[in-house]
Amino acid sequence: MLHRAIGIFDSGVGGLTVFKEIMHLLPGEDLLYLGDTARVPYGTKSAATVEQYALEAAAFLADQGVKLLVVACNTASAVALPALRERFQLPVIGVIEPGARRAARSLNHRIGVIGTEGTINSGRYREAIHALLPDAQVVAVPCPLFVPLAEEGWAEHEVARLTAQEYLQPLIAAQIDTLVLGCTHYPLLRNTLQQVLGPQVQLVDSAEETALRVAELFREQGLARPEHGGRRAFFVTDVPTRFERVGRAFLGDVLGPVKQVRIG
Amino acid sequence: MLHRAIGIFDSGVGGLTVFKEIMHLLPGEDLLYLGDTARVPYGTKSAATVEQYALEAAAFLADQGVKLLVVACNTASAVALPALRERFQLPVIGVIEPGARRAARSLNHRIGVIGTEGTINSGRYREAIHALLPDAQVVAVPCPLFVPLAEEGWAEHEVARLTAQEYLQPLIAAQIDTLVLGCTHYPLLRNTLQQVLGPQVQLVDSAEETALRVAELFREQGLARPEHGGRRAFFVTDVPTRFERVGRAFLGDVLGPVKQVRIG
Repeated sequence: MLHRAIGIFDSGVGGLTVFKEIMHLLPGEDLLYLGDTARVPYGTKSAATVEQYALEAAAFLADQGVKLLVVACNTASAVALPALRERFQLPVIGVIEPGARRAARSLNHRIGVIGTEGTINSGRYREAIHALLPDAQVVAVPCPLFVPLAEEGWAEHEVARLTAQEYLQPLIAAQIDTLVLGCTHYPLLRNTLQQVLGPQVQLVDSAEETALRVAELFREQGLARPEHGGRRAFFVTDVPTRFERVGRAFLGDVLGPVKQVRIG
Repeated sequence: MLHRAIGIFDSGVGGLTVFKEIMHLLPGEDLLYLGDTARVPYGTKSAATVEQYALEAAAFLADQGVKLLVVACNTASAVALPALRERFQLPVIGVIEPGARRAARSLNHRIGVIGTEGTINSGRYREAIHALLPDAQVVAVPCPLFVPLAEEGWAEHEVARLTAQEYLQPLIAAQIDTLVLGCTHYPLLRNTLQQVLGPQVQLVDSAEETALRVAELFREQGLARPEHGGRRAFFVTDVPTRFERVGRAFLGDVLGPVKQVRIG
């Protein structure tokens, strides 16, 4: 059992930010990554459809034999965790609880959350933050243009700055001191967001927090591999060309061969 | 046979522009529309995956019994027409040939084409224009941000203007007199595009041209319904909420009940 890999899935390439942080914290573990690139994005789709896609992605990883499932997609974490935990006899970690835990350290208790429509409409970040900090004022805003801007390579373009000014206006008005980047693509926009919000606002990257939570769980439950493995494998549901190109920007040469698979 | 409906499909809601034009030109025909909203968008996915999705969408419409198939999606028209024509014993019309035919009326033979990555990378517009106008200079540019901008309702926002200035730069430099809007969402950006390009550039809307081509085929092949029908039905693959909301902006009250179906 302990020799099994950690399975990580996302709707596409963005979850590689989570993969990278886990790889750094737990370098001896085998990691399997699945990007559902034939059906990306999840963020604009209904909760029912995202739940079905997440169950199919998780079933593929479970069939490979994994000891832990990491949902590296905010939208899937927001709507599919209960169904995943019911279906699979495995620990399942999403990205929302870890991000909320970090955000709850806010000093002025005014917290911003940005994400896809699916994530924001689910209200899960708000719930998770209020569970830890009941008096928090949470301002949650969907930012649908940030993913295409990041994928276009325009994260620091004038267009991204102008878009951020528009989306972040209610967060600035609410004088937040903490902003949760509730989508795995958003860390690519970090410089632009920080510039628009000012240096006093703390940006919370769910990828880092999730990797810390995984490492903590490994210590608590003694899940670590007895000897060094460190194998990595990458799977996608569309042809791998685009994933390989964009993925290399996230992971560099760590990104090995990417194999196309059918799921669902 | 003549009593059968016309089947129209797109990856999502954008094909309703084609639906609307066909409805105006052939008001007595029954129309079935399918939006593959559970897997939208097609424009960033591989040709193989888009071909498979298009075959599944067409099979659903063929099972309803249609007399003509209209591929109201530029990406699917670019990569899936040969496979669709081979599989189904029906006339199949895409949006690329009609758009190219209109563009070939360019006076200075300098023609711009904008579309998704899938459409532009396929080279099909360039081929179709060169078949009609061999000396044409065709400048084709992918504009991935235009669809999310249109869906965000920012078609006339400063962000859209700035984005258009950047994307259209090579077309302005080439002094085009005609621009093909090679994606069903782009007509929503018409004002912004015209403003950036100047009034001397003719914008070609594939939706209008495709509807004209369908009407022409009906005359040529005697496909028209003997008596007035005019029933319309709408199907999607994700839950209909979002489609109904955005679709009403395209069609108004013509958009009747939308039914979710499973395909593939």
